[in-house]
Amino acid sequence: MAVPLVSPAVRGLGYLAALLTTLSFFPQALKTLRSGDTSAISLRMYGLFTAGIALWAIYGFYTGDGPLIVANLVTLVPAGIVLERKLQSLRAPRR
Amino acid sequence: MAVPLVSPAVRGLGYLAALLTTLSFFPQALKTLRSGDTSAISLRMYGLFTAGIALWAIYGFYTGDGPLIVANLVTLVPAGIVLERKLQSLRAPRR
Repeated sequence: MAVPLVSPAVRGLGYLAALLTTLSFFPQALKTLRSGDTSAISLRMYGLFTAGIALWAIYGFYTGDGPLIVANLVTLVPAGIVLERKLQSLRAPRR
Repeated sequence: MAVPLVSPAVRGLGYLAALLTTLSFFPQALKTLRSGDTSAISLRMYGLFTAGIALWAIYGFYTGDGPLIVANLVTLVPAGIVLERKLQSLRAPRR
């Protein structure tokens, strides 16, 4: 694992970026989970998004990039749950 | 600018992650721009998201991380436009 020489200030910038994008993601995911309504969600786009986050986390691990690992692992949890609910809704028999 | 020692394969993984999350972002932004309807968008969340992307791009620059720079600069364009439309809609007199 290659750990780049990054100053604490720059690393702090990374964690701030991680905080903002992760924070901005949660309300939408929580709203979807509470309402159970995934009709507005495109399975294809959400699948791409969730796969992308997983890859970013793996990439962060290989580059030894803390903010990348934290931001994407944290976001992966609600993203994965919403994706799973979307899949469930597509499998459920139409009433 | 600290350029970490990262193998081409790992860098490729980063660009793939960048492609997936950037791809997954565009349709929603395009849909919003075409419809001009930003009512479903929370100004606070979108502001956080856009600020986060900008910080990720700056962070990518300081850590010499190509995928981070590309993914976030590319995403910043539609995100900035949608944010600007949202601000406009809030300033427009209510009919």
